[in-house]
Amino acid sequence: MEREEDFCPIHEAINLLQEKWVLHIVRALLEGEMGFNQLARAVGGVNPATLSHRLERLAALGVVEKEVLQAMPPRTRYRLTQAGRELESVIAAIEAWGKAYLKPAPDRRT
Amino acid sequence: MEREEDFCPIHEAINLLQEKWVLHIVRALLEGEMGFNQLARAVGGVNPATLSHRLERLAALGVVEKEVLQAMPPRTRYRLTQAGRELESVIAAIEAWGKAYLKPAPDRRT
Repeated sequence: MEREEDFCPIHEAINLLQEKWVLHIVRALLEGEMGFNQLARAVGGVNPATLSHRLERLAALGVVEKEVLQAMPPRTRYRLTQAGRELESVIAAIEAWGKAYLKPAPDRRT
Repeated sequence: MEREEDFCPIHEAINLLQEKWVLHIVRALLEGEMGFNQLARAVGGVNPATLSHRLERLAALGVVEKEVLQAMPPRTRYRLTQAGRELESVIAAIEAWGKAYLKPAPDRRT
């Protein structure tokens, strides 16, 4: 899948967004930049190692950027890049779909 | 998360769509209904047990419907329900984003 002629941006985008927590991370950061612990709480249930791994991947792809603030102890802030903010269209489409079609139904998990 | 007052349809929609292969399955079925093997090929790389599990979950949520055709041997067809077809807005947003922001870059996976 690495040769240029085989590259399908839609396939790659799906591969990225289906990584567990990625959509939750993007949704949280659309609310504004935040520190690691705040982001972990906003995402909910993710373990720190996994969150750190996902943030590194999103940074490598230019979706998230990390800023280390001069402080004692140093503080880290994460925010969406412009590419990341453009994922708002995806989150908005998911939001509209979820509101229209998903209902609370404890017994649907059969 | 099962009590009605805790139910967040966006959170639930993200949980569904971040399950590995679900977005690929929806994208494939947007092209038209297909049999199990054809769908497995279209999705690419999924093992049959996982695909079967995902299709059951999508059917339970009313996203996919399954038809068993009277034939020898019996043939099975899968298609999107109306709720499933409405996910086209999500796939379209992912497509637009991927085309705009993801480029072939073998060395970006560092």
